[in-house]
Amino acid sequence: MIQAGIYGATGYTGLLLVRLLTNHPHVQVRFGTSESSAGQLLSDVFPCPYDLKLIKAEDAPLSEVDVAFLCLPHAESLDMVRNVCAAGVKAIDLSADFRLKDAVTYEKWYGVQHTAPDLLAEAVYGLPEIHRQSIRRANLVANPGCFPTSVILGLYPLAKNGLLADKTIIVDSKTGVSGAGRSLKLGSLFVEVNENLSPYNIGHKHRHTPEMEQELDLTATGPYRVIFSPHLLPVNQGILSTMYVSVRDGYDADQVLSLYRETYADEPFIQVLPAGSLATLRHVVHTNRCAISITQVDDTNRFIIISAIDNLVKGASGQAVQNMNILFGLDEQAGLRL
Amino acid sequence: MIQAGIYGATGYTGLLLVRLLTNHPHVQVRFGTSESSAGQLLSDVFPCPYDLKLIKAEDAPLSEVDVAFLCLPHAESLDMVRNVCAAGVKAIDLSADFRLKDAVTYEKWYGVQHTAPDLLAEAVYGLPEIHRQSIRRANLVANPGCFPTSVILGLYPLAKNGLLADKTIIVDSKTGVSGAGRSLKLGSLFVEVNENLSPYNIGHKHRHTPEMEQELDLTATGPYRVIFSPHLLPVNQGILSTMYVSVRDGYDADQVLSLYRETYADEPFIQVLPAGSLATLRHVVHTNRCAISITQVDDTNRFIIISAIDNLVKGASGQAVQNMNILFGLDEQAGLRL
Amino acid sequence: MIQAGIYGATGYTGLLLVRLLTNHPHVQVRFGTSESSAGQLLSDVFPCPYDLKLIKAEDAPLSEVDVAFLCLPHAESLDMVRNVCAAGVKAIDLSADFRLKDAVTYEKWYGVQHTAPDLLAEAVYGLPEIHRQSIRRANLVANPGCFPTSVILGLYPLAKNGLLADKTIIVDSKTGVSGAGRSLKLGSLFVEVNENLSPYNIGHKHRHTPEMEQELDLTATGPYRVIFSPHLLPVNQGILSTMYVSVRDGYDADQVLSLYRETYADEPFIQVLPAGSLATLRHVVHTNRCAISITQVDDTNRFIIISAIDNLVKGASGQAVQNMNILFGLDEQAGLRL
Amino acid sequence: MIQAGIYGATGYTGLLLVRLLTNHPHVQVRFGTSESSAGQLLSDVFPCPYDLKLIKAEDAPLSEVDVAFLCLPHAESLDMVRNVCAAGVKAIDLSADFRLKDAVTYEKWYGVQHTAPDLLAEAVYGLPEIHRQSIRRANLVANPGCFPTSVILGLYPLAKNGLLADKTIIVDSKTGVSGAGRSLKLGSLFVEVNENLSPYNIGHKHRHTPEMEQELDLTATGPYRVIFSPHLLPVNQGILSTMYVSVRDGYDADQVLSLYRETYADEPFIQVLPAGSLATLRHVVHTNRCAISITQVDDTNRFIIISAIDNLVKGASGQAVQNMNILFGLDEQAGLRL
Repeated sequence: MIQAGIYGATGYTGLLLVRLLTNHPHVQVRFGTSESSAGQLLSDVFPCPYDLKLIKAEDAPLSEVDVAFLCLPHAESLDMVRNVCAAGVKAIDLSADFRLKDAVTYEKWYGVQHTAPDLLAEAVYGLPEIHRQSIRRANLVANPGCFPTSVILGLYPLAKNGLLADKTIIVDSKTGVSGAGRSLKLGSLFVEVNENLSPYNIGHKHRHTPEMEQELDLTATGPYRVIFSPHLLPVNQGILSTMYVSVRDGYDADQVLSLYRETYADEPFIQVLPAGSLATLRHVVHTNRCAISITQVDDTNRFIIISAIDNLVKGASGQAVQNMNILFGLDEQAGLRL
Repeated sequence: MIQAGIYGATGYTGLLLVRLLTNHPHVQVRFGTSESSAGQLLSDVFPCPYDLKLIKAEDAPLSEVDVAFLCLPHAESLDMVRNVCAAGVKAIDLSADFRLKDAVTYEKWYGVQHTAPDLLAEAVYGLPEIHRQSIRRANLVANPGCFPTSVILGLYPLAKNGLLADKTIIVDSKTGVSGAGRSLKLGSLFVEVNENLSPYNIGHKHRHTPEMEQELDLTATGPYRVIFSPHLLPVNQGILSTMYVSVRDGYDADQVLSLYRETYADEPFIQVLPAGSLATLRHVVHTNRCAISITQVDDTNRFIIISAIDNLVKGASGQAVQNMNILFGLDEQAGLRL
Repeated sequence: MIQAGIYGATGYTGLLLVRLLTNHPHVQVRFGTSESSAGQLLSDVFPCPYDLKLIKAEDAPLSEVDVAFLCLPHAESLDMVRNVCAAGVKAIDLSADFRLKDAVTYEKWYGVQHTAPDLLAEAVYGLPEIHRQSIRRANLVANPGCFPTSVILGLYPLAKNGLLADKTIIVDSKTGVSGAGRSLKLGSLFVEVNENLSPYNIGHKHRHTPEMEQELDLTATGPYRVIFSPHLLPVNQGILSTMYVSVRDGYDADQVLSLYRETYADEPFIQVLPAGSLATLRHVVHTNRCAISITQVDDTNRFIIISAIDNLVKGASGQAVQNMNILFGLDEQAGLRL
Repeated sequence: MIQAGIYGATGYTGLLLVRLLTNHPHVQVRFGTSESSAGQLLSDVFPCPYDLKLIKAEDAPLSEVDVAFLCLPHAESLDMVRNVCAAGVKAIDLSADFRLKDAVTYEKWYGVQHTAPDLLAEAVYGLPEIHRQSIRRANLVANPGCFPTSVILGLYPLAKNGLLADKTIIVDSKTGVSGAGRSLKLGSLFVEVNENLSPYNIGHKHRHTPEMEQELDLTATGPYRVIFSPHLLPVNQGILSTMYVSVRDGYDADQVLSLYRETYADEPFIQVLPAGSLATLRHVVHTNRCAISITQVDDTNRFIIISAIDNLVKGASGQAVQNMNILFGLDEQAGLRL
């Protein structure tokens, strides 16, 4: 059994990790931390059946675990990841701290100095469908952001093959509220969100934008510029990204669809939908899957790619478990047949 | 034109008062207060078209208004109502501070000393369907709580006529989230409420319970004991109270229905539903109405009374406007044809 | 008092018309039709307080009314509008039958022959902000579609002034479920819609697309091509359209904002938001307003225009009442201060 | 591997069975039937990844399966269960056809003649927490109704021990919309349900009432009469039943809580909450658990028992899988660690 610890167990991603790992056939949860609820059981602070005793991070028995998941706010992860790595424990970091390979870019977008450039250099971006080989050998996995997961998976086959005729890509995303976390903000109150739809940070402002551009640019067919417009939906979970692209002349819908099917042929969690079907949140919520649909606009070279994931599962905790499975040589779907 | 001021204009009841009074044919809003947003426009802090400049309560020009609405937390209203009354301005207080006639009961349930017993003595409980005559002459109206409005209106015809065979009444209420106000609480977050239903303070613990018992007991057919179970619903607005009563022998459904129709014959805001129809939130949301349905259980003396209101309208701001209309001799429906 | 009749009073737009007209200071509702519920009261078939007796369309007393609103499915309106016009009654048609000026285009998109080209020739497209003068003199008003209302109002200032550098415009729209009407479809069931987001008819397929293109092209700065992607949201009411445009060089955010403010300076129902604010559904639901926000992407010539309306109010019944107010020389806001 | 077939695979309970059985470690799904969608894949008719070919019921290869689940409307199950049993296949019937032991009662409440009284005699009511021993030996399991599951589990410890002082019990239940099935009804449309709460069939009229009374009466401490008031909630899944009981004198909250803990000590799916916690839907949705809370009203003999389940899981398909696990001697939690 793999022994696992969770830093930040009382947020939505931490809670889901407890649930996924508790039901995982090869894992035992050794600790969960919470600075504000240390001393209580998880079942005391959330309506769930998990009687996990919460502890302070400083009391975490790192020597007893094989892997640690970090569900901490960005910047806070920087130091904690160092502790974990120093203890020889594999780290899967769900924050943004190790996703951007360029510390300067990180500092520009997050307004925080990157204090661990050495670790940044060895961190692997944990999108298995693209970086599986590197993840296998990693000690530190930077679990991707939720929006980037949906966007990169949706555009990767086109970018990798240099088929994007226009390097500016319009991404109109819609996300469930759990993406905002479990902290107290006016904009997360039920009455503010329900029966509403709110765009926010649209254009080229959202912190997940450079992450998308970084991964698209790694295909060496760019540089790309993503115009990214997130909207807050009145649902708990799910991200749907509607992406408007121009494809190089000479490719019709069938060919593009074939390209996606080939690219993802062996991927257990990617569902490329048949022609005529459109991806919806219902395809993916409460699963680790990404559903992708391809639509050509009349007979033009304009295409609309839709990519849907569950932001808490494939967009966070489920992908973290997938990364853990890869790190430890397990069946990649173990604990993720939801 | 009646000149009106609003203390606490940025909570849900305050916002609705601004909207109702702005569209009221005989009212002008002179001021709205907010301690945290003073200096800003209301349209800056809430997506609405009202460019009302927010001021601190201490800067409120009381001398320029005829009536003040107080949408403050309980206990905070005590002092502010004194200021308003001292200035010779009519006060409509939406807090709980002047609803319970007995200061000792108030102190027991709210854990606060009542510092204005003199004003309490002259306050009128602002449920027009029962106390319209007294409201007309009042200087201080204690606007009823949302749950009590639904429960008292639903039980009043039976209580007044001494038809309740069992003095213990079971009230199972369901409320929308706006009833919890616009303050930051974990339990008001979208993800916590959505796809959930949460009972809270059930039995004989909710602070609105003594208010219900007080008004039922005023019929002199009690004393009554209300077992009251509120549940938090994933909707923005609305309260539906399902009430289980035993009626004195010899009354069938037709007779009880007739009694309700007679009692409320001249009430513009009470809709007694025909036999076979059940009250729903849809009957009343976004209106100042109370819909009531009567159901006999088989041919027994057990009845189920259902009473529905919009907690923000008839349960708060709409009823406050109705009280203002009465205070100033206006058409009771002015500004409330929603 | 203006006497009004409503064909199709039991759908969502018909129900809202009954509500708006009943509370309108200068209107009396003389009849409401329903083929399936004729003989019943409206309050029998919907939880509302309107005891309007429903009749069959063939029994409608056309000679007693000044204006008729038609809330019928497309194609069904063709004949009924002819009857109404033949009786010398002003017609406000909420169907799609008289919106497209070109009968061939209508037949292509709706798959129905247009049997009233004579009436089509005199119909006026009822978007007051653009066609107010023509509406004043009209006998037949084609009330715009919900999506086109949001899109055209959002793009009109740019199109009219020839500022759109790219004639292909990407419109990503999100709509509440009431837009699908009150008919029984699997896709309108609560469980199918709730906690879901579903794109449909994306690209260049939705029937509202030619309506948008027609009105943009009337500015003579086109021709335009709209890539239009509607998504079904889990909310009752509201449309939010996120529009991606390229503006002619030399215009910055301030200038574009000024242009919008000038264009809509005298419009009572258009709210152009200040720089930095983004339009949301909350700005407009349950009102006849359209809220518009303008966002420049960094310092490029790319802009994101967001336009929000309530699909049932400004997108249907409210706009129909606005058109009626114009037809009869009333205050344009009469009955629409919601 | 156990070979399983599903009759009626495209309703909500059928869809969930496909999902649960596909991920069950010891089961293979051999067929799923649908009269209207025969010939299509399940993934064609529902956004899911299950490419199960749908067939007509008459083409079901009964000889190849060990167990058949019937998710058919009541009355339709009568004949199909006979076929299944005649083929020597274990039947788990999710309809109401074999739940009421008394055919006369069935006929009174369902308005249909019971054509299989012989099978009724050997059917076992599939509530494992009460009838586990009988289920083990059964050939035909009548899977309980969703409301009865929540109510019976919530009252059983009190009834079994004869502690209910009042034989009339008030049950106020709230259910998610999936309980109404996937058929087209006006009352199941999103716009009708959302932002609404609707009581229906209240008093002593809902067909699940005799099922509750039958099981309570089997404790031989009755006869009991259940006043049952269901309300339709705007959520997809979940039932919460709030039950008002009077307990025999001399029992306080601690003693009642202990009684529940003892009764359900070995039950893997029952979670008796600690004093002070109240059951919510969040405790149970998407799981096979039943959460129960006990609240004493002040220091009286009145108690409020709250019992929550997921109507589709413990209230239908999950309990059906639990029954299958028992029938075949498997770990009762197999495939149900959700």
